[in-house]
Amino acid sequence: MPRFAKGNFGLVFGSGNPVIGSFEFAFLKGVGSAPNTDYAPTIPHLTFMVYQMMFAVISPALITGAYAERVKFNALLVYSIVWAFLVYFPVAHMLWGKGGYFNAYLGGAIPVFDFAGGTVVHITTGISALVCALVIGPRNGYPNEPMKPHSLVLSFTGACLLWVGWFGFNAGSALAANGLASSAFVTTHLGSAAGALGWLIAEKIKMGRPSALGAISGSVAGLATVTQGAGFVSPFAGAVYGLAGGVICFYMVAIVKNKFGYDDSLDAFGVHGIGGTIGATLTGVFATNVVNDALKLANGQAAPLGMVDGNSAQIGNQLIGAAVAIAFAVIGSYIALMIAKITCGGLRLDAREESQGMDLAIHGEEGYNLEA
Amino acid sequence: MPRFAKGNFGLVFGSGNPVIGSFEFAFLKGVGSAPNTDYAPTIPHLTFMVYQMMFAVISPALITGAYAERVKFNALLVYSIVWAFLVYFPVAHMLWGKGGYFNAYLGGAIPVFDFAGGTVVHITTGISALVCALVIGPRNGYPNEPMKPHSLVLSFTGACLLWVGWFGFNAGSALAANGLASSAFVTTHLGSAAGALGWLIAEKIKMGRPSALGAISGSVAGLATVTQGAGFVSPFAGAVYGLAGGVICFYMVAIVKNKFGYDDSLDAFGVHGIGGTIGATLTGVFATNVVNDALKLANGQAAPLGMVDGNSAQIGNQLIGAAVAIAFAVIGSYIALMIAKITCGGLRLDAREESQGMDLAIHGEEGYNLEA
Amino acid sequence: MPRFAKGNFGLVFGSGNPVIGSFEFAFLKGVGSAPNTDYAPTIPHLTFMVYQMMFAVISPALITGAYAERVKFNALLVYSIVWAFLVYFPVAHMLWGKGGYFNAYLGGAIPVFDFAGGTVVHITTGISALVCALVIGPRNGYPNEPMKPHSLVLSFTGACLLWVGWFGFNAGSALAANGLASSAFVTTHLGSAAGALGWLIAEKIKMGRPSALGAISGSVAGLATVTQGAGFVSPFAGAVYGLAGGVICFYMVAIVKNKFGYDDSLDAFGVHGIGGTIGATLTGVFATNVVNDALKLANGQAAPLGMVDGNSAQIGNQLIGAAVAIAFAVIGSYIALMIAKITCGGLRLDAREESQGMDLAIHGEEGYNLEA
Repeated sequence: MPRFAKGNFGLVFGSGNPVIGSFEFAFLKGVGSAPNTDYAPTIPHLTFMVYQMMFAVISPALITGAYAERVKFNALLVYSIVWAFLVYFPVAHMLWGKGGYFNAYLGGAIPVFDFAGGTVVHITTGISALVCALVIGPRNGYPNEPMKPHSLVLSFTGACLLWVGWFGFNAGSALAANGLASSAFVTTHLGSAAGALGWLIAEKIKMGRPSALGAISGSVAGLATVTQGAGFVSPFAGAVYGLAGGVICFYMVAIVKNKFGYDDSLDAFGVHGIGGTIGATLTGVFATNVVNDALKLANGQAAPLGMVDGNSAQIGNQLIGAAVAIAFAVIGSYIALMIAKITCGGLRLDAREESQGMDLAIHGEEGYNLEA
Repeated sequence: MPRFAKGNFGLVFGSGNPVIGSFEFAFLKGVGSAPNTDYAPTIPHLTFMVYQMMFAVISPALITGAYAERVKFNALLVYSIVWAFLVYFPVAHMLWGKGGYFNAYLGGAIPVFDFAGGTVVHITTGISALVCALVIGPRNGYPNEPMKPHSLVLSFTGACLLWVGWFGFNAGSALAANGLASSAFVTTHLGSAAGALGWLIAEKIKMGRPSALGAISGSVAGLATVTQGAGFVSPFAGAVYGLAGGVICFYMVAIVKNKFGYDDSLDAFGVHGIGGTIGATLTGVFATNVVNDALKLANGQAAPLGMVDGNSAQIGNQLIGAAVAIAFAVIGSYIALMIAKITCGGLRLDAREESQGMDLAIHGEEGYNLEA
Repeated sequence: MPRFAKGNFGLVFGSGNPVIGSFEFAFLKGVGSAPNTDYAPTIPHLTFMVYQMMFAVISPALITGAYAERVKFNALLVYSIVWAFLVYFPVAHMLWGKGGYFNAYLGGAIPVFDFAGGTVVHITTGISALVCALVIGPRNGYPNEPMKPHSLVLSFTGACLLWVGWFGFNAGSALAANGLASSAFVTTHLGSAAGALGWLIAEKIKMGRPSALGAISGSVAGLATVTQGAGFVSPFAGAVYGLAGGVICFYMVAIVKNKFGYDDSLDAFGVHGIGGTIGATLTGVFATNVVNDALKLANGQAAPLGMVDGNSAQIGNQLIGAAVAIAFAVIGSYIALMIAKITCGGLRLDAREESQGMDLAIHGEEGYNLEA
């Protein structure tokens, strides 16, 4: 994946049309130590490139959460690569690329504020996850056989690493070590903490007890929700994002999913898709030039951003951005799955491989040999 | 916890009386991108706030080591929150806050040097841990049933992450990327390495063999010990702190604890409490203006700090600071436990829940489902 | 180990003769906040020291991979310390120290380019690993009894941490937050990614299936290979290093090792030794002053570095550097093993201890007590 993302950095950040970039940076032509002043005037262009690569490579990995344990390895690879071209590159260009339709900073028509990937990463991957879960179908035995988390200890450890790493995405998106980065950091932290709190309270009410799995699910839901607004809203608004994300994502994962019966194994849709959509919407409300005054009016003053700045049209813009991302995700994911199905002779493992487990059946190895 | 720490940032760092701060920063009023020049003139106030939040939230977590596996979840929450108000906020204000009684840099009467929390974090939490262990009582079956470490592999991994993370506390407390941060970093590293070495040697002599658990216990003991002096003493003094911490904490944990029979499950008192107290004392000896010249005399020259600078009164000051912290910890912890007991209908799980384990009995989940 | 490395920082970086440094920095004399302008004019000397300590302490740890599970604990300690003096300190001084024979920047006779330890760390440790595996002999039962990886889950997690940590070595070796660091970062990342890809493809061809163990082995092979060139070659050359390292190291580990029958338990030779040697050679080809212009000609222009700059003699220089490092590793490791053998009364555990496992037999503890 890194090779592909890198080869195609220009498809997102090159000057193209409002929907897709260009090959101007193909094979890193002109991407060196000198900054790209369009995006980040104080860091090397290479640093900006490898930083953005991080968003591009984590996105298909998020989707795997929806179809884990039942998809062919080669189908996973084909799907992920095609998905990047059909979904990630255009949506990221539209919101973040020069001339992108939704990039108000660099010549876009309709401003959509997405600080660190709420729409670009979380809506695209969450919706794609749902498409994958529906097209590929549930694991054999789901939902009748119990399919408990394999190791909550590792999940918890992983979530802690994720919480820390997320600061890289959200504070790092200030692209400088400045006050905006600090503000985005605090906003993100409060979003995550409030997400955990919200989920735990909802779980306590609905299930009668809070759980460790709930704490980490809630913190990730809070993070996915706050990502879009991190550098546009106040720290306290971050807590609102997190609470909303924690409670609503809990409801989706614990109630709605069971009603519909799709098998989103690790809740990529329920957490990233729903959280991202909530965050996209709330950013239309809470984005404020008190926190981020980079967007200027013709007279040089900071432009009003969200409803709290008096720009109530922004909620509509944010929803349009989310809707376009959803459309790309649905159509692009479906096409990518079909291409994977044709080129790989089907998407799913056969029943024997699935019951044996991919580790052994496909990769010839086991996770543990604790007796050895 | 983060919400509380944040809402109460001013109780530590606001200008108040010598014992407690104020609500001037309540709800982050006035805490933004502009630096707070009282504390850290080169970083955003928000960065300083979230950095200090880290100390506040890790402290109650350290105490849990003393009473793990037998306390109600709601009692844990109540205790931790009340503890922050009764112990952490006043002690931290006294040593670090503007006008705090022990803060010589910002108008305090008696200077106590605590670079990164030896007294503020480790003495307060270690002593509170002992109070909790005594009040709550041992786990059922302790010490007759064997209660071995669950997974030394995870403990070792965690200790490695902790060692790295501790640089954030100790070098970060320079509040700038400068020579003092570098010195504190090296001093901390030598303290941790010497702590591991000291513990292993003591263990080899007493037990006949060094162990992996001893290596990590010793490194944490070294870290807890060196924290108070990290930015005031030379790197070589750091090795002295570490050796002292490693050897003495080993003695407390392996010999003294068994004599008294209290159940400090993860040795929060034996490591953090004892290590912190050793470090507070040694800082009266080794603190030197060769390393840290921020404290000035009326004539503008760097003030002598510890005994090595000819200021032998400082050892007494450090012990006064430690004694006050111990008093707050004992009284505050006891009150916090009583409040938790009353509000939660008792502190302990019932015997059936404890024998079943909290994961299953309280949270309805299991750490592992390796067969699944 | 840290104590030793630190006490002997001057043996590498002090001004000495072309083969070894001096005691000028013994006990950190003169190593403080002021930069050492010979090496790193913008960071404290202490920071440079502790950064370089990292290379010195990880090196003996890499070698342990070859002789795991069969060597006495005290023999390990003696070997590691003696090894540092006989192998690491002279080789590191020759390539990186002031006046070192291969350090063209600081008065050396023959320039050998090693940005972040391809020769200094990976060739020395990889070759020493082979010597250890041959002298100490295979684990009892090898290769007839299956000796599967204990926990692939932990291996994978560890490799991910290693990949991230490696940026510290390779980008950090720019010793500044600048464009060269950024370039080395990207080059390293592509090397690791291409290493994983190369190994997986080779494994798929030879074994019929790619594996998770192959992915992480390949990424480490790519990292070991790209390390020597990271700050001298273009990002795309990094992908060439990685592919070469991934494919050739796979061949060494999966085919050649089995033919010869030595027991390099964790493939320290096959990955670090072979990868390091490939990287040393390729740097003679791909090093270019387009990426790194620090070496100047008498007329002030950037000196040509590798074959791509028209300096085809450099490949020979790189091979001479590698050969000298190999000679030191072979002779030094052998002497260090003999010293350990004599002082510790043999190198190996007795058969009973080995079959029982070192954890229990030597350290009196177990990795897991999952039932507890």
